[in-house]
Amino acid sequence: MKTLDLTTPALLIDHRALQHNLETMAAALPGRRLRPHVKAHKCVPLARLQAAQGHHGFTCATIREMEGLAAAGLGDDLLLANEVVDASRLGRLDARVTVAVDSEATIEAAVRGGVREVLIDVNVGLPRCGCAPADAGRLADVARSKGLGVRGVMGYEGHVVGLDDRALRVAKTAEAMDLLCAAHRDVGGELVSAGGTGTYDVNTWASEIQAGSYALMDTAYARLGLPFRQALSVLATVISVSSGFAVADCGLKALGMDHGNPTIPGSKVWFCSDEHVTFGVGDDASLVVEDAAPDAPRRGSALRVGDRIRVLPAHVDPTMAYHERVVVVAGTEVVETWPIELRGW
Amino acid sequence: MKTLDLTTPALLIDHRALQHNLETMAAALPGRRLRPHVKAHKCVPLARLQAAQGHHGFTCATIREMEGLAAAGLGDDLLLANEVVDASRLGRLDARVTVAVDSEATIEAAVRGGVREVLIDVNVGLPRCGCAPADAGRLADVARSKGLGVRGVMGYEGHVVGLDDRALRVAKTAEAMDLLCAAHRDVGGELVSAGGTGTYDVNTWASEIQAGSYALMDTAYARLGLPFRQALSVLATVISVSSGFAVADCGLKALGMDHGNPTIPGSKVWFCSDEHVTFGVGDDASLVVEDAAPDAPRRGSALRVGDRIRVLPAHVDPTMAYHERVVVVAGTEVVETWPIELRGW
Repeated sequence: MKTLDLTTPALLIDHRALQHNLETMAAALPGRRLRPHVKAHKCVPLARLQAAQGHHGFTCATIREMEGLAAAGLGDDLLLANEVVDASRLGRLDARVTVAVDSEATIEAAVRGGVREVLIDVNVGLPRCGCAPADAGRLADVARSKGLGVRGVMGYEGHVVGLDDRALRVAKTAEAMDLLCAAHRDVGGELVSAGGTGTYDVNTWASEIQAGSYALMDTAYARLGLPFRQALSVLATVISVSSGFAVADCGLKALGMDHGNPTIPGSKVWFCSDEHVTFGVGDDASLVVEDAAPDAPRRGSALRVGDRIRVLPAHVDPTMAYHERVVVVAGTEVVETWPIELRGW
Repeated sequence: MKTLDLTTPALLIDHRALQHNLETMAAALPGRRLRPHVKAHKCVPLARLQAAQGHHGFTCATIREMEGLAAAGLGDDLLLANEVVDASRLGRLDARVTVAVDSEATIEAAVRGGVREVLIDVNVGLPRCGCAPADAGRLADVARSKGLGVRGVMGYEGHVVGLDDRALRVAKTAEAMDLLCAAHRDVGGELVSAGGTGTYDVNTWASEIQAGSYALMDTAYARLGLPFRQALSVLATVISVSSGFAVADCGLKALGMDHGNPTIPGSKVWFCSDEHVTFGVGDDASLVVEDAAPDAPRRGSALRVGDRIRVLPAHVDPTMAYHERVVVVAGTEVVETWPIELRGW
């Protein structure tokens, strides 16, 4: 089967780029040094490839993701890196389950739900979840007094991972991890869980890195000059060509839009509507047409209705969450189709 | 069942507000004067309510939406207000199917796919699909020469519907509809299909209005002072409270983000992450807590982990597209749960 046979918009993973990304990360952070974040892809077959690289612990953002990995037999060591008020579904899982807690209320929720292990979530600079660093030790004591195992601390430097300037990323990561390590001294346990794709090689304090985007990458992370390749794209069909612009059938319901417009290499995206992307096709466009219909590949200024192009999402995670399935391709050859079954809550 | 029993994030429709919106629109644009746009909700039970108000023609943006309505017995008169290159799935539907065309290639696609009726899509100022107004008559001749029925013209003034200033909306709609009416004189047929929620009472040229957002509304359209009420919200649970801010479990994967951040009445949203919304809770917050746990409703500055709040999406359409289901509520009472089954392509 060829990409030409796919209904568009179709979410594609470039098989070679994915493999490169998985191998590059596994070489940098082997085995337990990486706890891949499943929220970035919500896709069991991709998690299996990460496990095959030697990463047997996973990070999740939702209970549904935890349930899906457990049901798939990938439940060796699952971390819900997020607070929950009702942990009862977690307590029922056939898996090793650890949940983040940052308050007495979330500790009580873990106990009530039958979860046995927690990480103390520490605010290291991103105004989101996490206790004040100075409060981590007290919360660990509370958790242990209620019979919970405290495996260590977690603290996500989310305000740092996207900084373009590597030196600034290094300095700000050091500041954040100073806070986390101080909290860890108060809390104890073997885990210091932190980091993301943008700090995977910068954060040398964490015992494990929670990177997810590295596997598929997006245009936001591409700016950072990391050794990972953009593996995710949306195949779209040109449905209308006008003077100076054209329209393809990949709209904002096929793309995560919180990081802005997608990119079409060789062209400039004007705007997205629900089911359309409008982009420039002047004489200067160097857009590569694939699956050109009916001729061989042509370039931007000669674009025709029926031609197919690739659209690169600005943000992987919410893009994956819009699609029922993703098609793994090698060039224009379809290798496999994977369900994106960990969507929803 | 109460909203307190729902897993969060949960997409909610306020039953009374929806009914008000449906009735208000049906009074303004009865029967065939409105061709409700299904892309705004992707929900068959809601389309049935629109049909019950007397609107028996529907507008769709995707083939999947067309298929779903046809399968549900709502196929009296379905318009795909979008160009397609492969119309074969449309040709197989047990429904009256009309598709927008704006080029010889899309006319040929309709013929090839077995579709029998088309509208000539005219560019009336939004750089997206649609032929040049002066070319509409020629395309209608081409379509008729190939055996297609040409029902008239379509032209969406999408660059006008969101303008805050009503006088400007009126003036710009007049300009756009001048173009469309000129094209209609060349094309013939009974339909002049145009408009949206923002121009439903301003566009007096169109024979039918393609409004969709009016049924559920969002904060973007709310600025326009229309007589429709915000019926859609996301119920979220507060999972973390810090000094000056709190976090609830409604992130950017539960919200269309292309129009920006959601609104939390009585508070200020700081930012959204994948599964979090961070918002201010100072002394000045007047946030209304519903389903407060365990006490009666409290106000913002006394927010606790486990409290539940309502988050208002900035854009209805891509918000609906993220959720498997929507829960119809009357206050905190659950009335019904509807699948959002027309998602995907």
